Amino acid sequence: MPGSEQGSNSVAGVSIGRRGFLAAGAGAFLCSIGGQEILVEKAGDAAKADAAAARVKKPAGAKAKIAATAPGTSVVDQLEFATPKPQPGGKVVEYWIQATAPLWDIVPTRPRRDYWHGTRIAGPSVFRAFAYQLMTEGFASTAGPAAIPGPTLECEVGDVLRVHVRNGLPDKYAQAITMHPHGVRYTPDYDGAYMGDFTRAGAYIGPGEEFTYVWEAVPEAVGAWPYHDHGPNHTLNSMRGLFGAIIVHPKNGPRADVERVLFLHSLAPPTTALKRVFQCINGRAYAGNTPTIEVKAGQRVALHVFGIDDAFHDFHIHGHRWRKDGGNFSTDNQTVGPAETISVRFTEDNPGRWLYHCHVMSHQDNGMAGFYLVTP
Amino acid sequence: MPGSEQGSNSVAGVSIGRRGFLAAGAGAFLCSIGGQEILVEKAGDAAKADAAAARVKKPAGAKAKIAATAPGTSVVDQLEFATPKPQPGGKVVEYWIQATAPLWDIVPTRPRRDYWHGTRIAGPSVFRAFAYQLMTEGFASTAGPAAIPGPTLECEVGDVLRVHVRNGLPDKYAQAITMHPHGVRYTPDYDGAYMGDFTRAGAYIGPGEEFTYVWEAVPEAVGAWPYHDHGPNHTLNSMRGLFGAIIVHPKNGPRADVERVLFLHSLAPPTTALKRVFQCINGRAYAGNTPTIEVKAGQRVALHVFGIDDAFHDFHIHGHRWRKDGGNFSTDNQTVGPAETISVRFTEDNPGRWLYHCHVMSHQDNGMAGFYLVTP
Amino acid sequence: MPGSEQGSNSVAGVSIGRRGFLAAGAGAFLCSIGGQEILVEKAGDAAKADAAAARVKKPAGAKAKIAATAPGTSVVDQLEFATPKPQPGGKVVEYWIQATAPLWDIVPTRPRRDYWHGTRIAGPSVFRAFAYQLMTEGFASTAGPAAIPGPTLECEVGDVLRVHVRNGLPDKYAQAITMHPHGVRYTPDYDGAYMGDFTRAGAYIGPGEEFTYVWEAVPEAVGAWPYHDHGPNHTLNSMRGLFGAIIVHPKNGPRADVERVLFLHSLAPPTTALKRVFQCINGRAYAGNTPTIEVKAGQRVALHVFGIDDAFHDFHIHGHRWRKDGGNFSTDNQTVGPAETISVRFTEDNPGRWLYHCHVMSHQDNGMAGFYLVTP
Repeated sequence: MPGSEQGSNSVAGVSIGRRGFLAAGAGAFLCSIGGQEILVEKAGDAAKADAAAARVKKPAGAKAKIAATAPGTSVVDQLEFATPKPQPGGKVVEYWIQATAPLWDIVPTRPRRDYWHGTRIAGPSVFRAFAYQLMTEGFASTAGPAAIPGPTLECEVGDVLRVHVRNGLPDKYAQAITMHPHGVRYTPDYDGAYMGDFTRAGAYIGPGEEFTYVWEAVPEAVGAWPYHDHGPNHTLNSMRGLFGAIIVHPKNGPRADVERVLFLHSLAPPTTALKRVFQCINGRAYAGNTPTIEVKAGQRVALHVFGIDDAFHDFHIHGHRWRKDGGNFSTDNQTVGPAETISVRFTEDNPGRWLYHCHVMSHQDNGMAGFYLVTP
Repeated sequence: MPGSEQGSNSVAGVSIGRRGFLAAGAGAFLCSIGGQEILVEKAGDAAKADAAAARVKKPAGAKAKIAATAPGTSVVDQLEFATPKPQPGGKVVEYWIQATAPLWDIVPTRPRRDYWHGTRIAGPSVFRAFAYQLMTEGFASTAGPAAIPGPTLECEVGDVLRVHVRNGLPDKYAQAITMHPHGVRYTPDYDGAYMGDFTRAGAYIGPGEEFTYVWEAVPEAVGAWPYHDHGPNHTLNSMRGLFGAIIVHPKNGPRADVERVLFLHSLAPPTTALKRVFQCINGRAYAGNTPTIEVKAGQRVALHVFGIDDAFHDFHIHGHRWRKDGGNFSTDNQTVGPAETISVRFTEDNPGRWLYHCHVMSHQDNGMAGFYLVTP
Repeated sequence: MPGSEQGSNSVAGVSIGRRGFLAAGAGAFLCSIGGQEILVEKAGDAAKADAAAARVKKPAGAKAKIAATAPGTSVVDQLEFATPKPQPGGKVVEYWIQATAPLWDIVPTRPRRDYWHGTRIAGPSVFRAFAYQLMTEGFASTAGPAAIPGPTLECEVGDVLRVHVRNGLPDKYAQAITMHPHGVRYTPDYDGAYMGDFTRAGAYIGPGEEFTYVWEAVPEAVGAWPYHDHGPNHTLNSMRGLFGAIIVHPKNGPRADVERVLFLHSLAPPTTALKRVFQCINGRAYAGNTPTIEVKAGQRVALHVFGIDDAFHDFHIHGHRWRKDGGNFSTDNQTVGPAETISVRFTEDNPGRWLYHCHVMSHQDNGMAGFYLVTP
């Protein structure tokens, strides 16, 4: 897919055996897609999953009502739900977002470089991603580039998020997508999770279609949460980049001065058709390509860290420590699993250039690291 | 073992390469069994482990006392312990349980089906499990089918659990088993852990033998805990299904209206002699086969989730969130490792059909998912 | 390297296939070392990583100042920092430690034996480790054997740790090492993390060189933390054994009567050039070789458990339970990732011989277990 970006996996002075590229996990995964199980373990397999996803027809429940004759159906499948409204004093926060398929460079510096280790990174590093792209009101135009992760959706307790999602994937990927949120409250209509015969509105946004999700920022939702595709091809599409973050702030509460979201995930050959695994943060690999976070001493910092692949990660930042899950236990290194959140909060007091990285040994050296810069 | 259930791994319209079946982990593991290390990595290897286990003789300490001449022996090996009694106001709660070896269907729906994705699951799916089976008083008769997990053992703080365990494995599996509990208090005699020369009573229940464990529900044991085989062949036998749960309730405290235990684990070819890995919940794979949990709005829910294999899992339930470990951090997705417990507690307020699943991407599509149904 | 210790992997009555030795993880990892990525997946590859590390020259910033012309440089790279001093009432705690390369026996009992399962362990089990060794003041002489883990560094809140580190690796390993601490506070000069062009003093201790780290025991650092090599070859060198623990005690606070550090990690063929994987605790595998912990009833116990490899582990101790992260949730089995800490604290009340082990099934049977002995 990335065209001329594909090719040799060696550059002058850098040569890694095939297994080397795969050292941190071959990246194979099994997809259950409408009637079939498909193993995605090598470059061509993603196309098979896409073809299977293209064959998944819009379920009755996504058009009108779930058939009362569906095998295994329950009374709950016939329930009807009101659309949530903001709490008194709350507001509606609206976003327009389209799913699209940009070319995405995992190591955009040229020459490709790991600025931590001073290492030259062998190319190619561009693949066909799937990403959520922020649009202006009414999908009038793009409001920024399609990116991994997608736009961060923010609101306060008592608000309602109205998220208009359009399936803008190119025709060749003729498949449904969705947006499934974590943390916020929603009725089954706004779950965004394809469920075969039990699928409801919002859980199958076909090619060219739009859907508006309505989610409530209940008090228990304060924090940061991932959202991601949960349509018929959710596993592959999430791996490709169809994910982003929601932040629910306390009502009128204090906010961090610097708040960032960091997704830890691999981009592997079965997903990218590239020749090696990259261990990524926000779709990029290696310090200088991954987010460089800039903070001033005295600022309140919140780093929301998510896993979003098949692996478990361990988030470490040099020169700092925080209270694990807001309790009494002090840590500088915390486990985070797929779609799990850890929130690293502290007041900045230590100027300098610092590393942050996944402490899984082979992940840190395979790209899952970045710089955190503090000025006095 | 499963006889006519074994055979081709393809059915009409469904075909997965061998590696596909194994995508989520090949399921090999090393067993240390009385004098030998045995790798269980393919179908026939389990028989080798069984043969090794059959050669493990009953240690002296399991019959009378640990030999004072055992290499590495300590004064603690000669200690004698009283049998615990209930606290004032407490009671003795008795269970009769036998270990047996049922044929077990991982995907019992016919045709085999994943009701989440609407996917036809290729068979066969029956294997020879090991399971704890609830019996009536005095082992008079069976009190239910042998199942994965075994019976949930419940008591209150101050009580004593008296658990009578019989090794009812068929003659061909001529090996000792035990029951090792987590969380509750016990003396070394009731630990249920085979330890070679240091083995005590209760840590080797030979073929046809019985043993009565006595465990104390101390205040710190409030919560849910796994139990499992910890005899000479514990790793393989735990993988086969010899596990279950203990719930210790507060004395006269409030109880959940709906309380369920969910074990996350794989059943892989080295263990099952089947041709593919199944990612399971309570011994079943794929929604519609795994537990369907039914709840009414307003009910207090407690879901106790355990890992019980070589992997780490991440438990997610749609449309809900809970306080991680009872603290202040809100989550809807929590890591759980082998023999670890997470307790998901909330008051139900969101009617509909919801998914619960492991959020490890390839686990969710490989069977580790189920339905959670809420009526108004 | 271990010379005559290498050879056949079978002994009388014990034979395991090659894959068997590798069952719990092949132990391959990718190293990014000054200009190159090197896969360490088999015995000879460590030498390639060493050769690459030997080619990494001392960066300008480790000698004097970071070059203002370094690509990607920031104002923070030109900051200068004062050396921390103890708080009023605090003290300076000094250590002299050298990095060296001892021969290390993973299973030192003879005959090699797993005292838990009564299993004979096939040799060889000696490899060329890298380890931190405690020295007397001024590096006058050794103060104990080079060991895995290195010396435990202890201080109280308000103190400053002054740790003098010498690179005493044999000439054939002509590479820089460092000591990077977790938890304590330090300026960038004392981070001990090699960062290519952004490297500062203390992040490149060349062959034969010395450096003095100065770290502050701030109040939030109370607890136990790992330290480890973070030089140009950090991943391989940490795998080899260049790690240890720091314990920061509360000022004048109560201390545990028995306090131990337990590092969970694998020693695999790519690192050891041995023929099998060993799942280790503190560099040893199998009960009787791993630490045997001896405690008396009534003593306050603190076990600080760390991961220090590519894997996640699950720490379990029989017959006991503790409050997870000091909160309200009771556990006897807790997940711990690479360079993460869990602190297991309780007052001893249960005499006997107990097992402690990683509950990842194949880890427990592959050596990651030990004995915990309690006298009345």
